[in-house]
Amino acid sequence: MGKNSEIKLIGTAASPFVNRVQFVLSLKSIDYEFIDENLANKSELLLTSNPVYKKVPVLLHANKPPLPESPIIIEYLDEIYPDIHPILPSDPIARADNRFWANYIDTKFFPLFEDLRRTPGKEEKEEIKKQIIEGSELLEEAFVKLSNGKAYFGGDDVGYLDVVLGCFLAWTKFVEKYSEFKVIVEARTPKLLEWSERIWSHEALKDVIPGNEILMNFFMMLQIHKPPKAA
Amino acid sequence: MGKNSEIKLIGTAASPFVNRVQFVLSLKSIDYEFIDENLANKSELLLTSNPVYKKVPVLLHANKPPLPESPIIIEYLDEIYPDIHPILPSDPIARADNRFWANYIDTKFFPLFEDLRRTPGKEEKEEIKKQIIEGSELLEEAFVKLSNGKAYFGGDDVGYLDVVLGCFLAWTKFVEKYSEFKVIVEARTPKLLEWSERIWSHEALKDVIPGNEILMNFFMMLQIHKPPKAA
Repeated sequence: MGKNSEIKLIGTAASPFVNRVQFVLSLKSIDYEFIDENLANKSELLLTSNPVYKKVPVLLHANKPPLPESPIIIEYLDEIYPDIHPILPSDPIARADNRFWANYIDTKFFPLFEDLRRTPGKEEKEEIKKQIIEGSELLEEAFVKLSNGKAYFGGDDVGYLDVVLGCFLAWTKFVEKYSEFKVIVEARTPKLLEWSERIWSHEALKDVIPGNEILMNFFMMLQIHKPPKAA
Repeated sequence: MGKNSEIKLIGTAASPFVNRVQFVLSLKSIDYEFIDENLANKSELLLTSNPVYKKVPVLLHANKPPLPESPIIIEYLDEIYPDIHPILPSDPIARADNRFWANYIDTKFFPLFEDLRRTPGKEEKEEIKKQIIEGSELLEEAFVKLSNGKAYFGGDDVGYLDVVLGCFLAWTKFVEKYSEFKVIVEARTPKLLEWSERIWSHEALKDVIPGNEILMNFFMMLQIHKPPKAA
């Protein structure tokens, strides 16, 4: 990862949103410098680069204004490097479908996992698990439709939703490891299960997926800084 | 609006999200059929066209799959009709900035107005008003930066953020009409105030902005179906 790179990424290894950008940079063979951020003690660089949300990832490209927000960064990278491994499909309807499901994952599906962690009551937790299962079933349908019998959401090769959902797998697996709750299973989401095994072993994803210790440390930080709500 | 149109829009006149799509269709001189939806009693067409969110707007284009969500519809229209009145700028950084602020408006700024309506406590309402004011100041800065001394967020002509924020003005004005709370004012957001007067009198926006009776009816429906929370 080049010290002379024109591209720098402010991030933290445990963030699926950061991992996405890393995955895309890797797929597109873009050299970049990773600037590791401590979210428990945010840097001046992060605070001034993303004053509205103060979140990672932020992409710094040469002397252009800093770019926050993973979907926006990915579309940007796809626009400035359109020829090497396009991430979004070229057909406008397929692009719209990809954006729709990416937005669904970010605004509905993934936040349920954080709700699950923070909600104290057993019954409320069961209700959230039900919603996660319903979400996974919607994603199974989306996969069947978009992959059209091929290996990935993007068809024969990794596309936008493979990146977006693939980078969450470290966290769904983390939940599965430390609880009885299984998210992606043969009985409900057989195609998504096959896909998850396929993408999990993808070389470019392996490089960015955080290991268990990193996830555990991040989880502990969340428990301290954003503890479960009072019962 | 053509009965033989290839494009149909499921919507309701009071929705700023629907208005955006209407505004873009008008700017691009695209003929379409408007299918009026009663949100208090949703149609089969809406429920089957947008099963995930069950919300307007939904764009129906010939025999293609239905497209929900205004940002996704607008990008789609801009991609299939790129030559007539482009909505997003062509420069990738400017596109990213536009997407960033559109997302800010949808996920942070505008939801505050709904919070204001639903929050019962006087102190909590004051806190939300403070956040709305901070938001309007961020948008003033964004306008100064993106318009670069010109008339619109999009420069010399109406662009993405002019559409996105312009269609909310009916609601900010509605709030201002029925309360002492002024959102866009000379003292805090002078450029945004000038812009709001300019865009408000834009011919293509005038055609889609709902009148006071429509807003009032919608507001009453909200009060009944999603009443303010108990104190």
